Amino acid sequence: MSVAVSATLAVNEALEARRRAGAPVLPLGFGEAGLPVHPALRDALAAGGGCNSYGPVAGERGLREAAAGYWSRRGLDTDPNMVVAGPGSKPLLYALLMSIGGDVAVAAPSWVSYAAQSRLSGHRPLFVPTERGQGGVPQPDLLAEAVRDARAQGRDVRAVIATLPDNPTGTVAGADTVRRLAEVARALDLVVISDEIYRDLVHDPAATTVHSPAEFAPERTVVTTGLSKNLALGGWRLGVARLPDGPRGAHLRAELLGIASELWSSPSGPVQRAGALAFSEPAELTDHIGRSRRLHGTVARAVADRFTDAGATVAAPRAAFYLYPDFEPHRERLAAVFGVDDGPGLSRMLLERYGLGALPGVEFGECPEALRLRVATSLLYGDTDAERWAALAVDDPTSLPWIRAHLDRLEEVLSEVVEPVAAAA
Amino acid sequence: MSVAVSATLAVNEALEARRRAGAPVLPLGFGEAGLPVHPALRDALAAGGGCNSYGPVAGERGLREAAAGYWSRRGLDTDPNMVVAGPGSKPLLYALLMSIGGDVAVAAPSWVSYAAQSRLSGHRPLFVPTERGQGGVPQPDLLAEAVRDARAQGRDVRAVIATLPDNPTGTVAGADTVRRLAEVARALDLVVISDEIYRDLVHDPAATTVHSPAEFAPERTVVTTGLSKNLALGGWRLGVARLPDGPRGAHLRAELLGIASELWSSPSGPVQRAGALAFSEPAELTDHIGRSRRLHGTVARAVADRFTDAGATVAAPRAAFYLYPDFEPHRERLAAVFGVDDGPGLSRMLLERYGLGALPGVEFGECPEALRLRVATSLLYGDTDAERWAALAVDDPTSLPWIRAHLDRLEEVLSEVVEPVAAAA
Repeated sequence: MSVAVSATLAVNEALEARRRAGAPVLPLGFGEAGLPVHPALRDALAAGGGCNSYGPVAGERGLREAAAGYWSRRGLDTDPNMVVAGPGSKPLLYALLMSIGGDVAVAAPSWVSYAAQSRLSGHRPLFVPTERGQGGVPQPDLLAEAVRDARAQGRDVRAVIATLPDNPTGTVAGADTVRRLAEVARALDLVVISDEIYRDLVHDPAATTVHSPAEFAPERTVVTTGLSKNLALGGWRLGVARLPDGPRGAHLRAELLGIASELWSSPSGPVQRAGALAFSEPAELTDHIGRSRRLHGTVARAVADRFTDAGATVAAPRAAFYLYPDFEPHRERLAAVFGVDDGPGLSRMLLERYGLGALPGVEFGECPEALRLRVATSLLYGDTDAERWAALAVDDPTSLPWIRAHLDRLEEVLSEVVEPVAAAA
Repeated sequence: MSVAVSATLAVNEALEARRRAGAPVLPLGFGEAGLPVHPALRDALAAGGGCNSYGPVAGERGLREAAAGYWSRRGLDTDPNMVVAGPGSKPLLYALLMSIGGDVAVAAPSWVSYAAQSRLSGHRPLFVPTERGQGGVPQPDLLAEAVRDARAQGRDVRAVIATLPDNPTGTVAGADTVRRLAEVARALDLVVISDEIYRDLVHDPAATTVHSPAEFAPERTVVTTGLSKNLALGGWRLGVARLPDGPRGAHLRAELLGIASELWSSPSGPVQRAGALAFSEPAELTDHIGRSRRLHGTVARAVADRFTDAGATVAAPRAAFYLYPDFEPHRERLAAVFGVDDGPGLSRMLLERYGLGALPGVEFGECPEALRLRVATSLLYGDTDAERWAALAVDDPTSLPWIRAHLDRLEEVLSEVVEPVAAAA
């Protein structure tokens, strides 16, 4: 089993080295929410300090009931017995892939770990392109074709993963796309895994409600979410999965619990207590998420504007803290001036020359030639909790000097990259 | 991928149902330390509530330095860079098996999850018997023979797991056995995984120091431990691995981090803070572990005496909170009176007839015919934290009424099982 250390880690290390050397950095590589812990959650964690027994593999009843309520309030009636918690949605996704078995169809581009986990579980990912602006969902007609072709070649494709809203593009697939995905999944007898960890971070006021494949194919859709993004608790490690109704769900639950019990026993007890509070959605946390959403949106749009102004193509960011600019319009110049002719080359040049850390599309399953970058905007909010709280509090976070400085630096870097400059690299 | 829900869970559920029905239960099935959280650890967890960033996959530097100190104080000089933390030693063991690849030799009997994890990772466990009183270590000569035979049949055996001290037998293999294991591993080029999670719970004053294979084969031994047993923090989920010196360790570290980054990202931040305190071993925690060790020993010996008095064969418990009685001397009677002729039958009969929950040896890799049970004594300490603190405080915990009642009930059950009774089942 050979697994490369992820590109994210490599970018983080390079940025850290530059920081130590006093060189300017633009940390746009890492999908961490970049916000402080709400005090109510810290209190709940501390109050759960006595929870030292392993507890049920699926998670404590209180947590599962709270998660069921969370989903029910979003139109997905949920039986707490069909909720399984894990130490992050990442391990849950891996255990789900193990439980389902077979190959899995994933969007190109899509979050790096789906494909990596599929390989680790002894299978192969099947990449299917998305439609522009409908990130996270393999384009349903192409999905049907790809699965039929793969099966004709003897591959055992059993599932498809959707990300709603999407990482890396920051877009949200619409109801039609999601409905059509559900239809194709039913026609081809695929389990749908819908990763909805960014569900509460739709910041575009014009974006409609997030639609889950679970609305259209409840008998075959698993929904996952966690505390890492909405509440910026990535480092606490808690995820939950909502299994399908009916016999398929019951079978999957038994498999998943058997595997979870051998892989991680149960999620951390004190963190489960905090998770039970989080999923019960008290007003103070809802307000906090509201402020986070506004901050993510304001900064993501400001960053997107810089890329647009520089002539890159960017789908308008609608959710989370990502955007996915395409430098195709500058292909000739990038080759002529910087000797860059693919995504990894672009990413490397930006990192080495300007300290701008962003991941190339190839990391998300696109072809290396694509000059697209996944840009995460959430580490621009500040270096200290005080700065991050200030960013959450103000009406216009882009007016704060440390955020403004990042935006100005980005503008400067991009203008150098795309405008004629005196000397070539 | 098909995985049965573990026997432990099934026993727990049956006991819970009996408890609800008001029937007497003897909870001897589950290897949970059964003790409360020390206040200093609760405080450290609460103080770490702000640790919400993912942090390094290997774990925070402070935790890794503390773990390195812990091992160095036990004669194993440790570089903090060669420590990798995970959300429990269980996921670390799984990721190690994935990293190493190939089949793994395990002791028969040995902890249930080694074999299950080997199968989940796409390989097969190779069971090797232990020598009596030297639990946890595949008998070295038999190991050499089994590995050579397996390789001659085309199997790719790459590692061997030792448990020092041992679960399920509660014994500790001696220096000679461990040295010989290391020699065989070197001769056959096997990685040794030494699970030392019970290392600080040797309660037999006559038992010598625990010897780690890392003393004898430092170039190929991985040592794992965690907070679950010494400090009863099973539900908090933190484990650490100490990788070998030299090129083998460096290679294994890279593989392990690549896999860990796709399986769990990092262990929970606040729990890492508490772990850093725990592994730094302040006096108050060392005292607490000392009291725990005394309690485990006193109760394990009292329980062992009941089995011995009932004519079962039991190796003297020396560590942790386990014993492993053998009912072979009663084989004829068990068959004649209860229709029991194997371990699962014995376990089932004790559970259904008496509410005594203990796991049969077959769960630990022995043949089903073996009339051996893994008996865990740590859930006898009380049902509330107040009872458990009292058990930690008194000189003779077996004098406490709730522990005494369990021991009396055990005596009563065993006398009925092994003595002639009026009516057969």
